[in-house]
Amino acid sequence: MIFINDGGNEEMSEYIEHDTGGVSVGVVKKRYFTFAEPPHEMILESGAKLGPITIAYETCGTLNESRSNVVIVEHALTGDSHAAGYYSENDTKPGWWDIMVGPGKGIDTDKYFVVCSNILGSCMGTTGPGFNNPRTGKPYGLDFPVVTIGDMVKAQKALCDHLGIEKILSVIGGSIGGFQVLEWCLRYPDMVCSAIPLATTARHSALAIAFNEVGRQAIMADPNWANGSYYSGPKPDLGLAVARMIGHITYLSDESMRHKFGRKLQDKNDFSFNFDADFQVESYLRHQGEKFIERFDANSFLYITKAADYFDLKNQHGGGSTVRAFSKAKAKFMVVSFSSDWLYPTYQSKAMVKAMKKNGLDVSFCEIDAEWGHDAFLLKSDRLTALIRGFLERVCRETGQGRHEI
Amino acid sequence: MIFINDGGNEEMSEYIEHDTGGVSVGVVKKRYFTFAEPPHEMILESGAKLGPITIAYETCGTLNESRSNVVIVEHALTGDSHAAGYYSENDTKPGWWDIMVGPGKGIDTDKYFVVCSNILGSCMGTTGPGFNNPRTGKPYGLDFPVVTIGDMVKAQKALCDHLGIEKILSVIGGSIGGFQVLEWCLRYPDMVCSAIPLATTARHSALAIAFNEVGRQAIMADPNWANGSYYSGPKPDLGLAVARMIGHITYLSDESMRHKFGRKLQDKNDFSFNFDADFQVESYLRHQGEKFIERFDANSFLYITKAADYFDLKNQHGGGSTVRAFSKAKAKFMVVSFSSDWLYPTYQSKAMVKAMKKNGLDVSFCEIDAEWGHDAFLLKSDRLTALIRGFLERVCRETGQGRHEI
Repeated sequence: MIFINDGGNEEMSEYIEHDTGGVSVGVVKKRYFTFAEPPHEMILESGAKLGPITIAYETCGTLNESRSNVVIVEHALTGDSHAAGYYSENDTKPGWWDIMVGPGKGIDTDKYFVVCSNILGSCMGTTGPGFNNPRTGKPYGLDFPVVTIGDMVKAQKALCDHLGIEKILSVIGGSIGGFQVLEWCLRYPDMVCSAIPLATTARHSALAIAFNEVGRQAIMADPNWANGSYYSGPKPDLGLAVARMIGHITYLSDESMRHKFGRKLQDKNDFSFNFDADFQVESYLRHQGEKFIERFDANSFLYITKAADYFDLKNQHGGGSTVRAFSKAKAKFMVVSFSSDWLYPTYQSKAMVKAMKKNGLDVSFCEIDAEWGHDAFLLKSDRLTALIRGFLERVCRETGQGRHEI
Repeated sequence: MIFINDGGNEEMSEYIEHDTGGVSVGVVKKRYFTFAEPPHEMILESGAKLGPITIAYETCGTLNESRSNVVIVEHALTGDSHAAGYYSENDTKPGWWDIMVGPGKGIDTDKYFVVCSNILGSCMGTTGPGFNNPRTGKPYGLDFPVVTIGDMVKAQKALCDHLGIEKILSVIGGSIGGFQVLEWCLRYPDMVCSAIPLATTARHSALAIAFNEVGRQAIMADPNWANGSYYSGPKPDLGLAVARMIGHITYLSDESMRHKFGRKLQDKNDFSFNFDADFQVESYLRHQGEKFIERFDANSFLYITKAADYFDLKNQHGGGSTVRAFSKAKAKFMVVSFSSDWLYPTYQSKAMVKAMKKNGLDVSFCEIDAEWGHDAFLLKSDRLTALIRGFLERVCRETGQGRHEI
């Protein structure tokens, strides 16, 4: 979500001292896999057909001989396939989870083969509403079908097939990335040895839907949005910036905002008595909005938030019962929530854990005491690093998978 | 804030059963008082001059002979002077706090003379950015000076002078109304016998500023806003609706939204797989946005939220100390917070109470256990009614003011 590959980490680093957790995985390359060519398009959950589909993905580490050391990292709303490393020797900005993914890090690329792909509907290399519709030769816009978290995972499964991956040691992700983690476990239970859903939920609350809806309304209120057909003209930048600002508030917490901004004024000793940004928090939000429009597509924001709102393990996999939904799962789970996350609060993680336990699943749960709200899952945390490292080691030990036999 | 005179109560009544708390005060009349004519304009906190100023106000009950039974009711962001009663015999919609203000109610109009005026900068009869600027003969727009909570209260003091009110038995209000309550106590300490700040704070947190700023950005992003000069053309309705939707979310709570909406779908058994309102919470927010634009002025939204963000008792009255700020006060206080209010959480009320107590003030504090978030202060609550009734009776008893000698 926030602070993913948009300089957010730079912002935060003004306030939180952290190292990057060790050395980098080095130079990585974005790759593309295209499948589902007509007339063999992918059938989506809605019943619509979509194809061809291109998936942008990156890998770090080396696949072992038994192909048993695969860790899939799932990104959140505005992330991409660039989880770790740099695109070139001169690149100064590492991937969005470089803090966690790399040699000797929590997800140790000396041991594991990490795959991260951009999600369906996004705008970072994978097919989304900004892609050309093969039928018209023009960008899809709103002709792009509404995709679901299930569709995203189904596309990732196709990528795995392409890469010859039959078993996944662990699938890990936070926020909307966590939805994909959960979906993987229920959709392809025999493939997934273990899963780490971070700062996530089995279904969006009314509150989370409400914030997404207001963000969407802000975009659709922008006349430049033009019913989604803006690719050859001015973009709905102002609407998208407002949507991003709303999102940013939900990624922080009352406490973290108080510590980070409080009522500090922006470059001034007094109020402007006009509608300039008087407070640092105003300036910060405006800045986040402005940066976001440079890198993200407004329609992708609409599609991905809609997929997030639709996600509902209870109904989609359990016929109205979360317990029944998790009866499909076979993975070992480590569920992690963050104390100040009010977008996906701990009680929602606990509800998941309860349903997993009722199915006799091997599940660990940890609420990390953190003041940074929903964002916390992306920030340096020795606790989270140790938890992930330890869990992966235990999974290797107990399943005999992921041996370092490269 | 929410549910003030915009049908919000009707919405809520679908979900919460409540009566109106007794009989109505009956037909009331909106009156107007104009003052600060050039060259004697009011000097605002910013140093700017404003005048003439018209204040729209309403009264209920009868002023007693000693003029000692005055209760001032302060409205919140989008409220008005119409606190109680009806405008005509055929009027079906009572004032926004009819539940609390009326014969035999919490603020008993058989005993007290209730005055409620529309705040400076608003659009419900009192001078604001939509008023004609006497210098140009056209609506002020952004030429309207940025006003503060202090300016609003100063204008109310002028109204009191006009009405011959020298002593106020109690000043009562929630949210931004609560800011005015606090400001009254520090600005005119000798006039105010008692005060009831409800669901409020002594200064906006970064979180509260952030939400206001995003609302303002939504308005200013609307091309129809036209830098505030839209009064003769199309209005920034879409931007204002988004701003209102953001506000509405902050007035509710995770819990109340879960109970009220959960993931209930709107008139459908399945998802639309497009960008219609699938969930009831989406439809509710859109509806609130649409209703709001019919009755509120976008520029007033900008000005009042800015005043709210600027409000800071600690710095404006205490030179950086909340304790020092309250050293000016002489009133008896009853501070009330609501357990699920995350916009002005209980810890902020407690901080106020602590500062009051350090000054030896007579202060009662109550956190009402309520699931309805910030909104709770406007909803029927036997607890709140009893608290207000009891507190006012005690103030009368202890001060000898407000005797029923009409």
